[in-house]
Amino acid sequence: MIKDQLRQQRIETPSWAYGNSGTRFKVFAQQGVPRDPYEKLADAAQVHRYTGVAPTVALHIPWDKVDDYADLARHATEQGVTIGAINSNVFQDNDYMLGSVTHPDPEVRRKALRHLLDCVDIMDATGSDTLKLWFSDGTNYPGQDDIRARQDRLAEALAAVYERLGEEQRFLLEYKLFEPAFYMTDLPDWGTAYAHCLKLGPKAQVVVDTGHHAPGTNIEFIVAFLLREGKLGGFDFNSRFYADDDLMVGAADPFQLFRIMFEVIGGGGYTNETAFMLDQCHNIEPKIPGQIRSVMNVQEATAKALLVDRDALAVAQREGDVLGANAVLMDAYNTDVRPLLGELREEMGLAPDPMAAYAKSGYFEKIAADRVGGNQAGWGA
Amino acid sequence: MIKDQLRQQRIETPSWAYGNSGTRFKVFAQQGVPRDPYEKLADAAQVHRYTGVAPTVALHIPWDKVDDYADLARHATEQGVTIGAINSNVFQDNDYMLGSVTHPDPEVRRKALRHLLDCVDIMDATGSDTLKLWFSDGTNYPGQDDIRARQDRLAEALAAVYERLGEEQRFLLEYKLFEPAFYMTDLPDWGTAYAHCLKLGPKAQVVVDTGHHAPGTNIEFIVAFLLREGKLGGFDFNSRFYADDDLMVGAADPFQLFRIMFEVIGGGGYTNETAFMLDQCHNIEPKIPGQIRSVMNVQEATAKALLVDRDALAVAQREGDVLGANAVLMDAYNTDVRPLLGELREEMGLAPDPMAAYAKSGYFEKIAADRVGGNQAGWGA
Amino acid sequence: MIKDQLRQQRIETPSWAYGNSGTRFKVFAQQGVPRDPYEKLADAAQVHRYTGVAPTVALHIPWDKVDDYADLARHATEQGVTIGAINSNVFQDNDYMLGSVTHPDPEVRRKALRHLLDCVDIMDATGSDTLKLWFSDGTNYPGQDDIRARQDRLAEALAAVYERLGEEQRFLLEYKLFEPAFYMTDLPDWGTAYAHCLKLGPKAQVVVDTGHHAPGTNIEFIVAFLLREGKLGGFDFNSRFYADDDLMVGAADPFQLFRIMFEVIGGGGYTNETAFMLDQCHNIEPKIPGQIRSVMNVQEATAKALLVDRDALAVAQREGDVLGANAVLMDAYNTDVRPLLGELREEMGLAPDPMAAYAKSGYFEKIAADRVGGNQAGWGA
Amino acid sequence: MIKDQLRQQRIETPSWAYGNSGTRFKVFAQQGVPRDPYEKLADAAQVHRYTGVAPTVALHIPWDKVDDYADLARHATEQGVTIGAINSNVFQDNDYMLGSVTHPDPEVRRKALRHLLDCVDIMDATGSDTLKLWFSDGTNYPGQDDIRARQDRLAEALAAVYERLGEEQRFLLEYKLFEPAFYMTDLPDWGTAYAHCLKLGPKAQVVVDTGHHAPGTNIEFIVAFLLREGKLGGFDFNSRFYADDDLMVGAADPFQLFRIMFEVIGGGGYTNETAFMLDQCHNIEPKIPGQIRSVMNVQEATAKALLVDRDALAVAQREGDVLGANAVLMDAYNTDVRPLLGELREEMGLAPDPMAAYAKSGYFEKIAADRVGGNQAGWGA
Repeated sequence: MIKDQLRQQRIETPSWAYGNSGTRFKVFAQQGVPRDPYEKLADAAQVHRYTGVAPTVALHIPWDKVDDYADLARHATEQGVTIGAINSNVFQDNDYMLGSVTHPDPEVRRKALRHLLDCVDIMDATGSDTLKLWFSDGTNYPGQDDIRARQDRLAEALAAVYERLGEEQRFLLEYKLFEPAFYMTDLPDWGTAYAHCLKLGPKAQVVVDTGHHAPGTNIEFIVAFLLREGKLGGFDFNSRFYADDDLMVGAADPFQLFRIMFEVIGGGGYTNETAFMLDQCHNIEPKIPGQIRSVMNVQEATAKALLVDRDALAVAQREGDVLGANAVLMDAYNTDVRPLLGELREEMGLAPDPMAAYAKSGYFEKIAADRVGGNQAGWGA
Repeated sequence: MIKDQLRQQRIETPSWAYGNSGTRFKVFAQQGVPRDPYEKLADAAQVHRYTGVAPTVALHIPWDKVDDYADLARHATEQGVTIGAINSNVFQDNDYMLGSVTHPDPEVRRKALRHLLDCVDIMDATGSDTLKLWFSDGTNYPGQDDIRARQDRLAEALAAVYERLGEEQRFLLEYKLFEPAFYMTDLPDWGTAYAHCLKLGPKAQVVVDTGHHAPGTNIEFIVAFLLREGKLGGFDFNSRFYADDDLMVGAADPFQLFRIMFEVIGGGGYTNETAFMLDQCHNIEPKIPGQIRSVMNVQEATAKALLVDRDALAVAQREGDVLGANAVLMDAYNTDVRPLLGELREEMGLAPDPMAAYAKSGYFEKIAADRVGGNQAGWGA
Repeated sequence: MIKDQLRQQRIETPSWAYGNSGTRFKVFAQQGVPRDPYEKLADAAQVHRYTGVAPTVALHIPWDKVDDYADLARHATEQGVTIGAINSNVFQDNDYMLGSVTHPDPEVRRKALRHLLDCVDIMDATGSDTLKLWFSDGTNYPGQDDIRARQDRLAEALAAVYERLGEEQRFLLEYKLFEPAFYMTDLPDWGTAYAHCLKLGPKAQVVVDTGHHAPGTNIEFIVAFLLREGKLGGFDFNSRFYADDDLMVGAADPFQLFRIMFEVIGGGGYTNETAFMLDQCHNIEPKIPGQIRSVMNVQEATAKALLVDRDALAVAQREGDVLGANAVLMDAYNTDVRPLLGELREEMGLAPDPMAAYAKSGYFEKIAADRVGGNQAGWGA
Repeated sequence: MIKDQLRQQRIETPSWAYGNSGTRFKVFAQQGVPRDPYEKLADAAQVHRYTGVAPTVALHIPWDKVDDYADLARHATEQGVTIGAINSNVFQDNDYMLGSVTHPDPEVRRKALRHLLDCVDIMDATGSDTLKLWFSDGTNYPGQDDIRARQDRLAEALAAVYERLGEEQRFLLEYKLFEPAFYMTDLPDWGTAYAHCLKLGPKAQVVVDTGHHAPGTNIEFIVAFLLREGKLGGFDFNSRFYADDDLMVGAADPFQLFRIMFEVIGGGGYTNETAFMLDQCHNIEPKIPGQIRSVMNVQEATAKALLVDRDALAVAQREGDVLGANAVLMDAYNTDVRPLLGELREEMGLAPDPMAAYAKSGYFEKIAADRVGGNQAGWGA
């Protein structure tokens, strides 16, 4: 039963995870990094090949701009994956220095909105049903711009995008506490994203990036709350010790990841359309194995969350048995689920250890040799 | 003009600020502390006498329970003040160890709700139009109780209270990140409070306690957002360097207080029914002067916010002049408004320096001598 | 081998964990709570009886003041435990409102120092070799007192205590970011404690309370650093999601506890005199089971840390294999060590599940019935 | 008297503040940005021309690498400024992906050390007496490398650099909580930097970057403590709302800047060799005016700190007058010191408003026109 549920899990990897990335101090180049969206999809297909649960790949526009999106989608299918969410990018053009859809200049706002609508066109062309909206918009200094006027502009842009969505399409609205805006961010928290989505309707939902919160925020509370409201659209998974560190999901606080998955399952988010997406930078670790490890970390947390004896838990909770209820939860968390997942993979015709299987495959040696010359894809490219 | 606006400001002081208070480590007793609600009101009246802008006093039930609320209200009037918000307390009874309105046991929930409805009765009796709802409800350990079920229980209780409110009454819903719950708080942030209020209707609004946020939270953003939504009911003012330190408002970050007041004014919150309430503990400083200083701090921040040249600011913002726009704001902040406020007080028939005037009045010496014996009022009493 | 090391672990429980405790909002009374230090020791002995690794009990003076300390030590021995660290308390007297050893008034400083020296007398009488020094000293408002002068006063008091220590005695100096001081704490971080200890000599060491750090602090780094310097005296274990929440150790971030134990072992802190002490409040969970669970949590983290394949780790680190090195660590963390610990307990003649064994013992029912009347011991009593 | 002290203040600006900079998301190019170190010095000279208190300029190696440092120093003198601290950079070479002086590979460590020693050569060539050492070294994942071994390597490198310093030279050791390392930073806090400097001797001192601390850290405490120990070497000034935001100093929390300057003055740091350096990124505001504003902000904070009536403060502190002592401090902070600084500038032969004077000078228009073509200097160039 648990294995059935685990078998059906779908974790989306992002095309940009396969290119170089870094911090503001340095982007370290790696060997064999893809040079175009086609190569990114090929790499993403490797992750699915060894894990069996990563069949879709998110794109970032314009980083993944191509002339023929139908052709790109075909290429994906040939590799064994499909195109997932389309991520819009309105933060890397010089015009966006003071904002995109919230910019004081209506000309810039129009340009940004045009890009967002173009992304819906790409959804139509690729068959993607999900648009992910993240805005770096905000200000660095008190007084720099009018907080409230920027909300008006944001609402206007969101309404225009919402209007353009097709029947089977939705957008996920992402919030982030800070960075790159350092005084005020126009969508800083789940409450702001929720309020905007609520006004627009069912095709607008909130996406939770696990690295985008203030210190001390209880993320699983937000997850439970948004599920109760029908407004949890999905996750951008990654992990952090400090700010938006974008480390591999589950690397910093595996217990938190487990608690999040526990709420997802309890709130019905596992079987509905909640999207499990990775969004992390591999600054110093190799790209493909970094994604494989991350997918495995999400699987392990999910397996543990599925193991919780919810009946026993409900009894302990009802009786006010603080230690007992906590023990039921910890009992699942403390279980070593790796053998179970190894079995599942073998039942799925996969090697029990995806990391070892990929390492043995020779794929890395091949791309390292083949992909010499050309421009490596990277953060911003 | 600015003086006219300052003259109309109303800052509410809380009855519990006049009693002893402290931390979990120690409550330090002070001289002359009131022994009953009548004496608390007398002390609060002193703050109004010297500042001229603190004409109302918040009560806390059951700390301020009396047999005859109409008599208490009369006493207040005789002292020159009136009863402000009624604050409910569902956290100091043994039954509330695992929650009040969100407790797993329906019996406890009923008891808590009864108390909340009693508070509305007290509003009727005292003429108060505002009920402040803060719940300490939450859990200390993962698994201890069901996050979502607790939201259902919370919603149910809030609806019952909302239903009971009279035409001219409202409730303000308070959120707090943590303490005394240390894993999950049922109302941890403005988004949660907002979502509940939105469903209930116009008589439910959010109250912002300036000490109840995660590190790094931009409070003025929340203020601007809630005003845009018509959902900012008021403030619990205090200040903090770390957590919910409950220091005197303006003591830790006067620039933040200024930015908050700037958004209040810009968002129309100064002239509507937004309540400016103090809620702080004077652990080590004398009570009445502590409140006087706090009222003055709010006044100074307000005066500076009123001084901002909003036309010049709008021009700089429109032109994308980052340094110029910031400079307009800072110009007001850097102005010394104490002479202006001194003048205003003299025009109001008050001494220009309320701290000095109170110190000279002999009131402290009188209460220190008179109030010997009896039980000092304090946190929890 | 690992079992041998686990068998030798010694975890000290604190006498105050058996009494009532709470937050500033409410102390919830529990059934069967001890009424004097003798009953506290009896309860602590239960924890040792079922875990086999908690043979010492820390005292808090004056909370555990008795007329005849030799008699108390004898009573402890009869119960199967011995007296551990003596914890001084210079924060619950009215005189200490503005500080103890750093107070501006030399009279108060002398009083505080006298208490500290009395604690060394109690060490002599009980055979305790460790004095734990925590000071709540600090200020709430900028300007309130002179930061540097307070350091001078602190240094003077510490030197006087150091001077008084016997050959085989030491003191552990505790730091804490904030609370109950909310602007400036005189010993806010490990650097301050370290600098003072360094000047005094080898009998002064730093104690790390795992709940006393700023958000984001890497505690295991501090542990590794202090061990390298020979200045790690011990731990006050507990856990937190927000501030100094004093939850059961391992409850909030079991991965962090594992990382800490990993550094302890690698730095030689497991076999030297580093003290593993619990210091946590059981606000809502029953006392004795709360301590048993906490001892088990430390054991489990220790077992996992002992399981790390340090040779494989060193190879991966040397080769710059980021994912490989991390995987070696996680492999140990993901292991379920509960069966191993169950075996160990059986080899020690104990029940494999201490929680179940205690629950079945009838001890709670006995104390709940016996300890009616008298004053329950509690935080501050 | 206060004007005399203000006249002698020296605030160093960094060469890299005049080039483009940004976040990991985007570096926005600006008009007229310098294309080489010579042009950077010319721009820095503008800041000194209008403020009169910024006569030195910090270099960053290799960003400011030139063939002939003596010639560069001469050029500086011609512009009216001199070379200040030399900042080493061991974070932007591919070899440093896993560390520089703490890298597991001794070859990389040797390369990094060589660079540091080269920087001392440049000090000899330029007459600079200060080397600033910041290391991005750390790890992203638990287990990635050995925390303690990295401390050994760090200590070894620091000793080698210390050894190489001339009689009149010193190094300032910088700490930072996180970024670009996201799990463990080898020099994360002042305590670590202090401990290393202490072992080396008087030519090693700690530098406090005001943006490099955990949330809630009391920076002025660290300043007071390091001054008491004779170990405060200087400041890297900037400001932050969240993490290491590198905003203009004084922009986020002017009260904190005032408190820091108050401790500097009280601890004797104003008249000794404590260096006041700016280190901030102007991501969206124009470079030269951004530096001018920052210098003015430091001046204003200094002026207010000098205004504190220290005699009255000492009396209030001695008497335990919490509100009175705080009021003495706030009285200075609330004073508008801009007229005083305007007067001072006029006495120095400068325009009273440096921002306006620079804007009128036509310098920006000239460099915007002249500096077309070539490679703009920027973060990392």
